[in-house]
Amino acid sequence: MSSNKIDFSIPSLGEAKISSPIMMSTTHDDGQADYVTDDDHILYSIDTDIDEKGHPVPRHEETLEVAGPRAKIYFNPAHVHAAICTCGGICPGLNNVIRAVVRCFWYRYGVRRISGVQYGYQGLLENSPWPLIPLDPDVVDDIQEKGGTILGSARGGGKQVEEIVDSLERMNINILVTVGGDGTLRGAFDISEEVKKRGLKISVIGIPKTIDNDLSFIQSSFGVDTAVQMAVPVVRCAHIEAKNSIHGIGLVKVMGRESGFIAANTSLAQSDVNFCLIPENPFDLDGPEGLLARLKQRILERSHAVVLISEGAGQDLVPSTGETDASGNVKYQDIGIFLKDRINAYFKQEGIDTNVKYIDPSYIIRSAPADSFDSIYCARLGAHAVHAAMSGKTQALIAQVNNRFVHLPIKVAVSTRNHVDLEGSLWRDVLENTRQPFMMKNKD
Amino acid sequence: MSSNKIDFSIPSLGEAKISSPIMMSTTHDDGQADYVTDDDHILYSIDTDIDEKGHPVPRHEETLEVAGPRAKIYFNPAHVHAAICTCGGICPGLNNVIRAVVRCFWYRYGVRRISGVQYGYQGLLENSPWPLIPLDPDVVDDIQEKGGTILGSARGGGKQVEEIVDSLERMNINILVTVGGDGTLRGAFDISEEVKKRGLKISVIGIPKTIDNDLSFIQSSFGVDTAVQMAVPVVRCAHIEAKNSIHGIGLVKVMGRESGFIAANTSLAQSDVNFCLIPENPFDLDGPEGLLARLKQRILERSHAVVLISEGAGQDLVPSTGETDASGNVKYQDIGIFLKDRINAYFKQEGIDTNVKYIDPSYIIRSAPADSFDSIYCARLGAHAVHAAMSGKTQALIAQVNNRFVHLPIKVAVSTRNHVDLEGSLWRDVLENTRQPFMMKNKD
Amino acid sequence: MSSNKIDFSIPSLGEAKISSPIMMSTTHDDGQADYVTDDDHILYSIDTDIDEKGHPVPRHEETLEVAGPRAKIYFNPAHVHAAICTCGGICPGLNNVIRAVVRCFWYRYGVRRISGVQYGYQGLLENSPWPLIPLDPDVVDDIQEKGGTILGSARGGGKQVEEIVDSLERMNINILVTVGGDGTLRGAFDISEEVKKRGLKISVIGIPKTIDNDLSFIQSSFGVDTAVQMAVPVVRCAHIEAKNSIHGIGLVKVMGRESGFIAANTSLAQSDVNFCLIPENPFDLDGPEGLLARLKQRILERSHAVVLISEGAGQDLVPSTGETDASGNVKYQDIGIFLKDRINAYFKQEGIDTNVKYIDPSYIIRSAPADSFDSIYCARLGAHAVHAAMSGKTQALIAQVNNRFVHLPIKVAVSTRNHVDLEGSLWRDVLENTRQPFMMKNKD
Amino acid sequence: MSSNKIDFSIPSLGEAKISSPIMMSTTHDDGQADYVTDDDHILYSIDTDIDEKGHPVPRHEETLEVAGPRAKIYFNPAHVHAAICTCGGICPGLNNVIRAVVRCFWYRYGVRRISGVQYGYQGLLENSPWPLIPLDPDVVDDIQEKGGTILGSARGGGKQVEEIVDSLERMNINILVTVGGDGTLRGAFDISEEVKKRGLKISVIGIPKTIDNDLSFIQSSFGVDTAVQMAVPVVRCAHIEAKNSIHGIGLVKVMGRESGFIAANTSLAQSDVNFCLIPENPFDLDGPEGLLARLKQRILERSHAVVLISEGAGQDLVPSTGETDASGNVKYQDIGIFLKDRINAYFKQEGIDTNVKYIDPSYIIRSAPADSFDSIYCARLGAHAVHAAMSGKTQALIAQVNNRFVHLPIKVAVSTRNHVDLEGSLWRDVLENTRQPFMMKNKD
Repeated sequence: MSSNKIDFSIPSLGEAKISSPIMMSTTHDDGQADYVTDDDHILYSIDTDIDEKGHPVPRHEETLEVAGPRAKIYFNPAHVHAAICTCGGICPGLNNVIRAVVRCFWYRYGVRRISGVQYGYQGLLENSPWPLIPLDPDVVDDIQEKGGTILGSARGGGKQVEEIVDSLERMNINILVTVGGDGTLRGAFDISEEVKKRGLKISVIGIPKTIDNDLSFIQSSFGVDTAVQMAVPVVRCAHIEAKNSIHGIGLVKVMGRESGFIAANTSLAQSDVNFCLIPENPFDLDGPEGLLARLKQRILERSHAVVLISEGAGQDLVPSTGETDASGNVKYQDIGIFLKDRINAYFKQEGIDTNVKYIDPSYIIRSAPADSFDSIYCARLGAHAVHAAMSGKTQALIAQVNNRFVHLPIKVAVSTRNHVDLEGSLWRDVLENTRQPFMMKNKD
Repeated sequence: MSSNKIDFSIPSLGEAKISSPIMMSTTHDDGQADYVTDDDHILYSIDTDIDEKGHPVPRHEETLEVAGPRAKIYFNPAHVHAAICTCGGICPGLNNVIRAVVRCFWYRYGVRRISGVQYGYQGLLENSPWPLIPLDPDVVDDIQEKGGTILGSARGGGKQVEEIVDSLERMNINILVTVGGDGTLRGAFDISEEVKKRGLKISVIGIPKTIDNDLSFIQSSFGVDTAVQMAVPVVRCAHIEAKNSIHGIGLVKVMGRESGFIAANTSLAQSDVNFCLIPENPFDLDGPEGLLARLKQRILERSHAVVLISEGAGQDLVPSTGETDASGNVKYQDIGIFLKDRINAYFKQEGIDTNVKYIDPSYIIRSAPADSFDSIYCARLGAHAVHAAMSGKTQALIAQVNNRFVHLPIKVAVSTRNHVDLEGSLWRDVLENTRQPFMMKNKD
Repeated sequence: MSSNKIDFSIPSLGEAKISSPIMMSTTHDDGQADYVTDDDHILYSIDTDIDEKGHPVPRHEETLEVAGPRAKIYFNPAHVHAAICTCGGICPGLNNVIRAVVRCFWYRYGVRRISGVQYGYQGLLENSPWPLIPLDPDVVDDIQEKGGTILGSARGGGKQVEEIVDSLERMNINILVTVGGDGTLRGAFDISEEVKKRGLKISVIGIPKTIDNDLSFIQSSFGVDTAVQMAVPVVRCAHIEAKNSIHGIGLVKVMGRESGFIAANTSLAQSDVNFCLIPENPFDLDGPEGLLARLKQRILERSHAVVLISEGAGQDLVPSTGETDASGNVKYQDIGIFLKDRINAYFKQEGIDTNVKYIDPSYIIRSAPADSFDSIYCARLGAHAVHAAMSGKTQALIAQVNNRFVHLPIKVAVSTRNHVDLEGSLWRDVLENTRQPFMMKNKD
Repeated sequence: MSSNKIDFSIPSLGEAKISSPIMMSTTHDDGQADYVTDDDHILYSIDTDIDEKGHPVPRHEETLEVAGPRAKIYFNPAHVHAAICTCGGICPGLNNVIRAVVRCFWYRYGVRRISGVQYGYQGLLENSPWPLIPLDPDVVDDIQEKGGTILGSARGGGKQVEEIVDSLERMNINILVTVGGDGTLRGAFDISEEVKKRGLKISVIGIPKTIDNDLSFIQSSFGVDTAVQMAVPVVRCAHIEAKNSIHGIGLVKVMGRESGFIAANTSLAQSDVNFCLIPENPFDLDGPEGLLARLKQRILERSHAVVLISEGAGQDLVPSTGETDASGNVKYQDIGIFLKDRINAYFKQEGIDTNVKYIDPSYIIRSAPADSFDSIYCARLGAHAVHAAMSGKTQALIAQVNNRFVHLPIKVAVSTRNHVDLEGSLWRDVLENTRQPFMMKNKD
């Protein structure tokens, strides 16, 4: 077993003493749905060795607390003022999460003060021009049929921790559910640290949102499935454009700043992709092993090609913009346009007529409403966030690991990035599917 | 740990001695995708207890063999004649599986004799009028964009085991990949037993197909995700019909003979469902706790209602047909029509005008092409089946368990049924979402 | 020219004296959109003969008044109380019409009293339990993204003319826009006759709604295009089911009580249909020329077949139900189920195994949101209805004829039915596409 | 009546003497579909004046020959070698047209030599590397389910008229069906003039293809309806992006080089568009009446905005590229990127934070498969082209005018462009819907 055990324990605001108003059972085999207890754990990893006697010896001994409704809760529902905010770029499923949170607070626990914070943390700043939006089941009815978030979303604000906690105090908010990515979750952690410092009893629960799927420990983030569903027909268009013109090359850029999950999964779903380029797998453009020579070979053999690229791939090939956005993320050059120009120049130089058709569908993908997979996922994420908050958990994320909903300490979740493992089965299957070379780097 | 250990070991045709033509690595951390070894196992269950010292004690000690390409293979690709057949009702993803199998044999292993068997096992019977269809990458190009299966599918034939093995011998087929449900897989097991009895070296590999998701041990069967994606807009239609007419009741029937997974997941994905009825959860129609009284209450309170029912739910309420289909499955009464009539009669008697709109979308759902989730799933299932067969495994299913592709002994897989656990988290979340009563049975 | 000229003149409530608040032009060629005048007419029919000198002699000399905003209006917007109601079964585009009506009243004319009548004429009955719904641009924002009608729809009520006019008087409604089919429009006519009798100044404008497209003079009714868009994938499913099973027969029933436009157009759009059966073209089941013998021939030759049938086709073959619905329409037997049973019985008797898969998608089709074609159509229908009403027209329908929006007297529109012309180009092209025999009747 | 009569007469290769093999009727009222005769004409325009006696006096006296199967044909089907080519950019419906042409030749007339020309006219050049593709019903089965064209499409080649006619002679092609836009049709005309000069009997029939809908006389070109269907969800995405961010501006560019039909219709179909910019309606960026000031006003009032622009709009505002493409069309600057940059700069200067989200969906739109409207349209266009060719017509287009299929002389069709009439009802309805100012030009 690994020696550096990760600490997956979940902080709590205090002892949960109040009987839950949810009508569930604490007895197995009575045919009725059961409460979850804090003793319910799952193994973090299913990888195992087997000892001489044939017994399994799990490679990792960390376990995770299972999420779900507890028989005892910490907050008196009558005293709760819950708030929810959505931060960063939009992502399929945000409205589903909002809806599930509101409905679970309202119908399950009888909470009647639920507020929507507008434009992420910015709506909690002292001089925010945007008031809280009172939420109830009528307000959130049907919102899941639309993309985006009814609360609006924005980057930034997460560093003004004291100001935000002032606002929470002033508005008597004692549960804050934040939906966002890396930066948002760091902000949530800092907020809850400030809450603790002040001796307040405010539960801060995060719901991880990353369409790039680059948060660690989490099986797959909500919105990713929809993103792939939306990317597939775009790649199909690129394929048709490529096949229908003389030496046609379809080039599609999808989201994925540091992790190429959308590109990798799309390549598996729509197997017309010939070259899948992701940030984890650097490549050369020039030289005998480089992309351009490979592309030429493909065009000469098959007359058309489809290239799918993550926005963060090949960033070593382009000059840096030197700019950052409101969340502090480095702004990338548009690798798609860069690549299009380079491919055109290369084939012109090689004396081969080509037709490069470049498609950049990004907003089309992220503003889609959630598909049914993500709808289910978000409905359950939202409910689990409410259960966690009501039971007094804090500094916790709701995450799906090994198909179970668990509590994950925010601190742990933001400590590393999730990447496509170049030696793992996903990338292996992508390579088998695209039949692209394992490496497009020249030796030197 | 449990005492009755399930035997998950996988039979093999013999020692794999031939170096695989797939260019993969046997070394970790060389940045290249790795072969899988027979020692790679995962825990079957992630549930764990924790001992006094804080160490995890898994509740189940069974482990599963990880699927994937092996460094050594059993069959010389030049000697392989592989066949694939699709059995039973159609299901989203069949063409994706066929395509993946063909491409993996062809491109990865260089196998050039790949045959499609028409209409399931019937195409392997002695007097089958349907010849084998030669398959190659051109034939299967783009077939995944269509629903159904290019091979045709049919029930029956699986009992004529000797006749089928005669055919396999006569046609020199040494790898048989069968895609089908419970009955098909039992047939595959019987065929491979007969193969063994005759001392033949024929690998029989199954790919489980059950749109009802009722095969045990398997995380979720291919096609189920697409089925839910297709069912959601139908429920939305029922909801619109219900809301737009006076006391409207939308009634939708979905697949699910013995297991209500499609209905349960659809209820989570499209939260307009007020009553989700599944085979696992019997209900009364009449009496104060029965469905009709509950429905009346809903209509009086909210003026409209949506009822979603699995085809196998409530079969105790209707007279049996006494008939069986070609696979030996009992033919069910159409519970949807029965329920529609009963609801109409009840409300007439109660003096309440209603408009019951009944929708039965079954063929629309199962004939859809795979969505991207199932496309990815099927692409990987098909490739893993080929890897398993080439390495000499037999009597094995390819299955996803805890998000990993594993080999599952067919014998074990068909031993029990998979059901919605009424005390588990899926059903709990459905109940929270529909807010239907836990039980619609009268006490007696 | 024809002798029996149809009188297409449009009644008016009185002289329009008030300058329209819409900023349009009365001058041509000033580059600005123009008002329409009552002198603007189009020919009702484009069919023409040519005289000896080569000049065209139109076969019909009737002309139609062009719809659109007039420079002078009849009603002072400040005095208007407009009401809109949707009657009969739902149809794609209803919400688009409501939205367009509200927005045109509000934004173009500054009308601030706009009311939605619930559940068709029933909402105007004396003891209606449903209050008027105040409508404004916020209420109707985004409603077009949903199928159905936010006002609810119902049959019946249209005979209680006096009661309805009492209600209009009591609520000071001076513009009534009714959206509905044959019966609704007859009701609208009767209402406006009663209005005239009482000397009231209430404009009654109809927007024809018939998913069967069976209203005369009108080019194509809104919702029909969407209905065909929705029917096409259903036929594709039937085709897949048919092709994938042994001697598979896909049978699909679509709407079309007296007119087979949806079936005919769907057969052209999705050319997998082998037999398109419509009410206008009677057929035999039995005998050498009958459908069953033709179907057998097709099955023996091609192994699969797709049959598309309008709900009103073949009603002479089935026993009458003797029942009528709330609109007084005769209730039909389900020809689909009847045909399925007859096909099964016939092939059993002929000793041929078949698999008949019957799909009845009706509610799925009519509850869909409008596609873009119908969205545009409805946006324009709604606006033209408002322009007509504001200018004091009454007893008029808004209709598209020869691609122009015109005013059509309600009285004329409901006088005959629109049918598929068996000698015309639409049916000719259907026959060419399905290659079905011109007639499936036995001689006698 | 207008004095300058347009000559709509259709050239013919000679007298049609052969009885058509199509089983149709020459008698009315026998209940059987009828042949069309050369005397069947429709009025070109339905606009009419009315004389003192109340009789209509059509404003235009031109008439058009109705398309459809003739009782007598010119070509002996056994002697026909028909060829079809698709030119220029791809467009939804191309495969439907190819399929309809092939099926009509094959099934209706028994023609057995049908060839597909690859990559437009380039496939007819002397040194074309691409052979003719033999076409029959099996080859074209199901092709309509895919976007693009199975023949490939390319610009250019149309000027090498002699070379092309040499090829037609050499390959004994006596019917050429060309599908393409302005340039293609000019090429077709030139080819048929060369054919005439050589005394050959080759029928050249065009099917107009222009996703911009900019061909004159034609009601609406195939593919346009699908283009709008595809553009609507993209505008919806832009609207969601705009509404969900602080001062969000969604900017979408659609096709439309010289005519703004796609933008105008999309604005009617999806009424979230606030500014619809088309080539026909020039606008200023700066100044009090300019777009930027209007946009600022909208943002200050409503916080978000959606701008939809045709690619050819505002080209006077950007520097010319000076380049042309292979068809000789001037290459445009990307007005979308230009506008995005200008909007960003303007709001920065005004001190207002905005989020401009620019979406350019072009290839996604044009590579879509045809929707049902275009599927029907293309099925009928293709069949009518075959009927025209078989009856010996030449230099004719198949077009829909006033909802009828007619023959249009190519020469006339390419003489002018079709534009959105700024004083007509379409643009009037767009202005009513977007509520944008009639003019965004400053006075000077």
